[in-house]
Amino acid sequence: MADNKKKRISILGSTGSIGQNVLKVIENFPNKFQVIGLSAGSNINLLMEQIEKFNPRIVSILKKDKANLIKEKYRDLEVGYGEEGLERVATYPLNDLVVSAIVGIAGLKPTYQAIKAKKNIALANKESLVTGGKIIVKEAKNKGVNIIPIDSEHSGIFQCLNKEKKENIKKIILTASGGPFFRTSIKELPTKKVQEALKHPRWKMGIKTTIDSATLMNKGLELIEAYWLFGVKPSQLEVLIHPQSIVHSLVELKDGSILAQMSITDMRIPIQYALSFPERLNNSCGFSLDLAKINKLEFYPVDREKFPSIDFAQKALKEGESFPVVLNAVNEIAVNAFLKERINFIQIFKIIDCILRKHKKENIESIDDIFRIDKWARDEASKLILKGL
Amino acid sequence: MADNKKKRISILGSTGSIGQNVLKVIENFPNKFQVIGLSAGSNINLLMEQIEKFNPRIVSILKKDKANLIKEKYRDLEVGYGEEGLERVATYPLNDLVVSAIVGIAGLKPTYQAIKAKKNIALANKESLVTGGKIIVKEAKNKGVNIIPIDSEHSGIFQCLNKEKKENIKKIILTASGGPFFRTSIKELPTKKVQEALKHPRWKMGIKTTIDSATLMNKGLELIEAYWLFGVKPSQLEVLIHPQSIVHSLVELKDGSILAQMSITDMRIPIQYALSFPERLNNSCGFSLDLAKINKLEFYPVDREKFPSIDFAQKALKEGESFPVVLNAVNEIAVNAFLKERINFIQIFKIIDCILRKHKKENIESIDDIFRIDKWARDEASKLILKGL
Repeated sequence: MADNKKKRISILGSTGSIGQNVLKVIENFPNKFQVIGLSAGSNINLLMEQIEKFNPRIVSILKKDKANLIKEKYRDLEVGYGEEGLERVATYPLNDLVVSAIVGIAGLKPTYQAIKAKKNIALANKESLVTGGKIIVKEAKNKGVNIIPIDSEHSGIFQCLNKEKKENIKKIILTASGGPFFRTSIKELPTKKVQEALKHPRWKMGIKTTIDSATLMNKGLELIEAYWLFGVKPSQLEVLIHPQSIVHSLVELKDGSILAQMSITDMRIPIQYALSFPERLNNSCGFSLDLAKINKLEFYPVDREKFPSIDFAQKALKEGESFPVVLNAVNEIAVNAFLKERINFIQIFKIIDCILRKHKKENIESIDDIFRIDKWARDEASKLILKGL
Repeated sequence: MADNKKKRISILGSTGSIGQNVLKVIENFPNKFQVIGLSAGSNINLLMEQIEKFNPRIVSILKKDKANLIKEKYRDLEVGYGEEGLERVATYPLNDLVVSAIVGIAGLKPTYQAIKAKKNIALANKESLVTGGKIIVKEAKNKGVNIIPIDSEHSGIFQCLNKEKKENIKKIILTASGGPFFRTSIKELPTKKVQEALKHPRWKMGIKTTIDSATLMNKGLELIEAYWLFGVKPSQLEVLIHPQSIVHSLVELKDGSILAQMSITDMRIPIQYALSFPERLNNSCGFSLDLAKINKLEFYPVDREKFPSIDFAQKALKEGESFPVVLNAVNEIAVNAFLKERINFIQIFKIIDCILRKHKKENIESIDDIFRIDKWARDEASKLILKGL
């Protein structure tokens, strides 16, 4: 029987970078958290290690044959596969909290299903809000569900706002490390190779997110995420370059006070907060921030000519509805093409700009609408890359 | 008749640096605040200007003859003098909030009287808590009175803690600009003149506070103030040098998150917050912090050999009871002697150290106890200065 004193957690995307860190945090607090469900894409070996260690009730993996292999080995475990299996993990009745940590738009549907099933969400999957913000936020409100952000920037804002009234917010400022090309001149940018773009100065992240940090599109998508999480106007959202990545975000209140949240650059800090909210548990990283040792925190404005991603995001936010869906989809296709060396670094921006200009706004009324528009944008971007810019 | 929608405010010490800034803030919000009472020391001309402008119900001034001059000019105004007049302003029935902004231990008694009369306090007078913390905090708790700090550091902590549970606090870190001698070598310190000590790099403050910033005793006294305001252990209180004075304070929570409050260095920001709490009003400074323009925030450890004030304060806190009273009193005498060029800069430390070593702890049970011990310490310090170190 499940111990009612423990928070019962399912993790969508347990074998990814965030998923693994979530399990590290859970491991540190065996009396606080219990793993109920796990879902993975293709990494069956790691998923099986996780099953051994955390003894979940239900797991799901993308392909049926892999699900069968798991089923053979763990006879008492409920095993699903594909979209249906993912939905079963997301909506499993025992869940108190669902960690949405699948990368990409694949995370949207199970996050929505978990919310419909009245499960609180610890959200790492940006795309759920970037593409489905309107539907997700409405459903969460209807169901009285908390969406607690895992992204360090949004976790910082969430902590700074702690019961502060929305009308008191003047600005929300997301910090960006600036990525590997912060000090690269705009002229050199087209020559930058995949290996250079993958050298993120501060955070260890997945490949897609690391390229998004190099283009600053990561920050553009986070801007859209912040819009939905905190309900402010697009004009209240700003980005500031902060190479040390110590201050994760800032909130300026209308009276001129700025509140900021800082920590060492370790994802376990915001993950743990999202799991333990509204409580706080002891720091499980073994050390904490020493500002005298860090000595210096720097801040710079964004060079918007060099990095047009912030403008793309602001434009998509202002247009609304289908625009952020298009932005997200085209960016994913363009980043993949860059990773496969089919386009150069600045062509990522050109493809996004081109498709955003071509797109005619459509209203988003359902998850199906999102997938339809997502597909349109991907097809358009792929055609453009194939044709050559 | 008083307008019930407005917060009705009396200011103890209205002609001082803080008092004048309080009135600047009030002037900006004629629909939010109403001045009920004013008290001044000797600056009758400024007090009369304030009477003309803010039309209070009651005023008080130190000397009887000056009170008579005011009485003659403003026939309908209630005018008091001395301790009794101050008490009448502090406890005036119409007060919703009393701003305690008298400098020095003279602020203790009226602050205590205001609390006994169930008036919320906006506290700028450090000595009330440094010397009377035990009595003041107990009485405020009994009477259900809020003490909202005006000091920028404590206002910052107060804002960061916004409903955060006390058990979640790991450390409270007060920032210090480092004062004019931050980059002075310990060897040069004895040669520093009054005019050099008065050149504070960031804040415009009264003379006594400016010297306290040069010795870092200001931060020592603030440490004691924070102890009483936030109810943490002495070992949880730390000081960090931050020459830009942009980050006013930091709170480290047990999970490794640090919350910080920042603003431009203008006392109207924390004053306005203390007046408007729990609401926030629009920034009345005309501009707000631009971190990209500031560019750099630096942090350094305190050189405790050069500036022993933090150790003195920690010692006084750990010993408790009468020790902080002695620290405060001796410091005031030593600073006065320095200002009169009777002792050199580092002799301020020597006098404090000497009297703290000599003092035998006594329990504090009443305001009278505090004044008795305060007098003892002042006499001892004066004797020591007269005798020569």
